[in-house]
Amino acid sequence: MANEVILLDFWPSMFGMRTRIALREKGVEFEYREEDLANKSPLLLQMNPVHQKIPVLIHNGKPVCESSIQVEYIDEVWSHKNPILPSDPYKRAQARFWVDFIDKKMYEAQGKVWATTGEEQVAGKKAFIELLKTLESELGDKPFFGGDDFGYVDIGLIGFYTWFHAYDKYGNFSIEAECPKLIAWAKRCLQRESVAKSLPDSEKVTDFIAELRKKFVPE
Amino acid sequence: MANEVILLDFWPSMFGMRTRIALREKGVEFEYREEDLANKSPLLLQMNPVHQKIPVLIHNGKPVCESSIQVEYIDEVWSHKNPILPSDPYKRAQARFWVDFIDKKMYEAQGKVWATTGEEQVAGKKAFIELLKTLESELGDKPFFGGDDFGYVDIGLIGFYTWFHAYDKYGNFSIEAECPKLIAWAKRCLQRESVAKSLPDSEKVTDFIAELRKKFVPE
Repeated sequence: MANEVILLDFWPSMFGMRTRIALREKGVEFEYREEDLANKSPLLLQMNPVHQKIPVLIHNGKPVCESSIQVEYIDEVWSHKNPILPSDPYKRAQARFWVDFIDKKMYEAQGKVWATTGEEQVAGKKAFIELLKTLESELGDKPFFGGDDFGYVDIGLIGFYTWFHAYDKYGNFSIEAECPKLIAWAKRCLQRESVAKSLPDSEKVTDFIAELRKKFVPE
Repeated sequence: MANEVILLDFWPSMFGMRTRIALREKGVEFEYREEDLANKSPLLLQMNPVHQKIPVLIHNGKPVCESSIQVEYIDEVWSHKNPILPSDPYKRAQARFWVDFIDKKMYEAQGKVWATTGEEQVAGKKAFIELLKTLESELGDKPFFGGDDFGYVDIGLIGFYTWFHAYDKYGNFSIEAECPKLIAWAKRCLQRESVAKSLPDSEKVTDFIAELRKKFVPE
């Protein structure tokens, strides 16, 4: 069967980045289609009627929604190279736990850093740094979250790194000073071609956030 | 290796119910330990320091946290009988999508039905029934969510059924009138020993919610 793979995505999405990386880890050719989130395509609405969100992975006409589920799907379908999840059930459960933790906590927490003001921002900045320190503590002295090999948790988190420059700027802190091991880990991830090719430039993300702030954050 | 399995749980938890059912589907003997959530045990805090929540599955001294992850873990470790997830990658992704949907939407939505008042409750009741109708539509005319066999999505949702009586009472609606196929599905699930043994009595859950309402919901 021919593999027709389409990814409906939006370039600054740290969730879309996960799926781009996973596809490239496996060497899967795919058609990238940029969505205008203010004017979503009929295909997006048809393929993800429940959430109407990107990224949507369309494999031979059938949609897979939610980035963490897409990454597991890609790992199961293209199982011939670069395993993403570990094979041991306990290590798999641990990897899933941390991706779930990132899903539950990171997106909301990072928004408090750059999309709020006053006391809410002060509390949000503190909570966000604590969250990063929890992740850094889980990483420990390992090269990657799963150990020696790049894998599921690395893919789950690395997209946020492209937003770190904006968090530093609007949070008026230095993530590198707070979490040096996490920054060293991110730089290690970026040495992989799959990651380097899938992540946008930090400056471009920061400009994007500056535009969002103009619209949504009171001066 | 001997399998020592301990479940830290709280009897009305629809999340704990998932793990109880999965263990019983596999015929795994386990020690059930009831937690007092107002005074959590040192073991719970030690085994789930990140979220400090039940259920926690402890297998040979090592914790697995988050109920949907526990169910996948149980399916992978005790793979000899009653598969919970389908083997086909696309069907697995679909099953994960619906459990993720339940995780993201149901708990918050059901709380609006019995723990709010006034306009918030009116809107919450409407949204909750819509949510159930989305799930009923996904079920369609199949016996179970995955088709002919009881599986991951059924385990993910059935615990909420024990709370339906309370939703009817405090929402002043009839879920059975709104979603008759969903109720027929729940009754089919209850014919399985694993489910019947793992779910508490609806009346007991309703009494539990009545106590919560006395504490937290203004008259």
